[in-house]
Amino acid sequence: MGPRQVDVAALVAGTTAGEPRSIARLISLVEDGHPALPEVAAAVAPYGGRAHVVGLTGSPGVGKSTTTNALVRALRARGLRVGVLAVDPSSPFSGGALLGDRVRMEEHATDPDVVLRSMAARGHLGGLSAAAPMAVRVLDAAGCEVVLVETVGVGQSEVEVAGLADTTLVLLAPGMGDGIQAAKAGILEVADVLVVNKADRPGAAATSRDLRHLVGHAHRDPGAWTPPVVRSVASRAEGVDDVLAAVVDHREWLGREGRLRRRRVRRAAAEVEALAVAALRARIGDVHGAADLDALASAVVDGRTDPFSAADEVVARLGPASD
Amino acid sequence: MGPRQVDVAALVAGTTAGEPRSIARLISLVEDGHPALPEVAAAVAPYGGRAHVVGLTGSPGVGKSTTTNALVRALRARGLRVGVLAVDPSSPFSGGALLGDRVRMEEHATDPDVVLRSMAARGHLGGLSAAAPMAVRVLDAAGCEVVLVETVGVGQSEVEVAGLADTTLVLLAPGMGDGIQAAKAGILEVADVLVVNKADRPGAAATSRDLRHLVGHAHRDPGAWTPPVVRSVASRAEGVDDVLAAVVDHREWLGREGRLRRRRVRRAAAEVEALAVAALRARIGDVHGAADLDALASAVVDGRTDPFSAADEVVARLGPASD
Repeated sequence: MGPRQVDVAALVAGTTAGEPRSIARLISLVEDGHPALPEVAAAVAPYGGRAHVVGLTGSPGVGKSTTTNALVRALRARGLRVGVLAVDPSSPFSGGALLGDRVRMEEHATDPDVVLRSMAARGHLGGLSAAAPMAVRVLDAAGCEVVLVETVGVGQSEVEVAGLADTTLVLLAPGMGDGIQAAKAGILEVADVLVVNKADRPGAAATSRDLRHLVGHAHRDPGAWTPPVVRSVASRAEGVDDVLAAVVDHREWLGREGRLRRRRVRRAAAEVEALAVAALRARIGDVHGAADLDALASAVVDGRTDPFSAADEVVARLGPASD
Repeated sequence: MGPRQVDVAALVAGTTAGEPRSIARLISLVEDGHPALPEVAAAVAPYGGRAHVVGLTGSPGVGKSTTTNALVRALRARGLRVGVLAVDPSSPFSGGALLGDRVRMEEHATDPDVVLRSMAARGHLGGLSAAAPMAVRVLDAAGCEVVLVETVGVGQSEVEVAGLADTTLVLLAPGMGDGIQAAKAGILEVADVLVVNKADRPGAAATSRDLRHLVGHAHRDPGAWTPPVVRSVASRAEGVDDVLAAVVDHREWLGREGRLRRRRVRRAAAEVEALAVAALRARIGDVHGAADLDALASAVVDGRTDPFSAADEVVARLGPASD
């Protein structure tokens, strides 16, 4: 086998058997945007859909890693197999472990029922938004009953994490004006559970009250979920059971009236559409050699055509996909 | 004519005659992503390519508006007709004039050879990256010999402004650690001229020296342009002639050996590709009713297929574009 060839079937078999090296190798393929990725996706597909995917986001410094760690401990105490995917959308070039990772590793390194993985966006086709859901599928196939997806809350990432989770936790800390910021950033719309962490700090009660007020006044369809506001001090494991109880409540609510399925179908539709657009973009590059596109671009520069007409021509030349 | 119908031919005729209300109306159509946009593009196409497009970017507070204003004054003193497009990529919802706009308006309101326009991203198809180059074309068709495009330097916007300008000015202010920040943010790669504004402040000499050092050590192809570092105090019109001289130097360099044309062809190719992708994305929505995409997404959720295979199916069903 060449250096880029891999035995996908063997890796998937190893993964579904819970074999750590197969799992790690498979997620690496996903992260790297390996050419075998579609093959991996197909092989993993039958094993998905069992894990409860819990997203965890918030600004730097609110205690995401500590909370994730505390949740892993609490989930393990309940006998559940747990996957953790720490995603850093802001570091396309780091490609390595997050800072908090080593700390977590130390505590859970010897536990075969905790699968930890950091992932950075590598700038390949579809980027992190394509890789993260596939990595979650791998952890799901690896028998993880809960998959925690932790992302740094910068810009659009809260919305992205909500795009791949069944239940989204948004973490805040007291006294950062976070309530207002959260409302502005559209965080309230994606949060299923609001966690005020570092609740031993001054202002925790006020922040909780503000958030409850905001949640209470947000427009919501009848019968919709009202995000609870939970206080915790994750570093001392205080309130973690309350956070977990809220997650379980939300999971139960999702399970009723086909909500979970609808949510997952909506997510899958968005994922499929994004991949289709990426594929079409790649086909533009295949069908139109650089010279071809340059000829159209030259016509635009010369005023012989305009960008819209040129784009129409590009689309027309793609033709049928029956290859 | 219906409310959404417009007489594009009349507006373009008015624009090429330099008629202010036609110009304003045409740019509004562009900004709004009006259905007549492709028609506008086609009608305007023969009149483009004459203006020297100068991009101007930098962090908030470095003096972009003041510099733009000073440059307009200097260009008018040389008898040139000037267009100004102030773009705010960070405010998709503002849709209004930028803060500095009224100030500028006051000074140049009575000058028929200054065309000022603010533009906000409206979140329509292709967004600002589609609208801004077309607005530049309108100002070009309106006989502006220089078009200044000013954008707030947040995140990717420096790269975007470089994507539509012949010459890109990056503004910095002393003592903000801007040199290092600029290097990190990839600003040095897009800058054709580096302007240290507010050069009467402490640290201006050090900032200039740092920048020259960074520029000197950047990898560059043989014969490539070396961005000059120019100091100015735009609020007192000091150094503005030096900035303008650097812009003229760069324009002359571009004019040699077909560089300007190559740059513009590259830009047009990127624009055409982006529009083609946007058109394809829209076609996915047309060809696949929501129910159709949901059926594929359901199959993904059930593990009967995977997202890549589903995406392939979406692409295949698009079929030929011969409509």
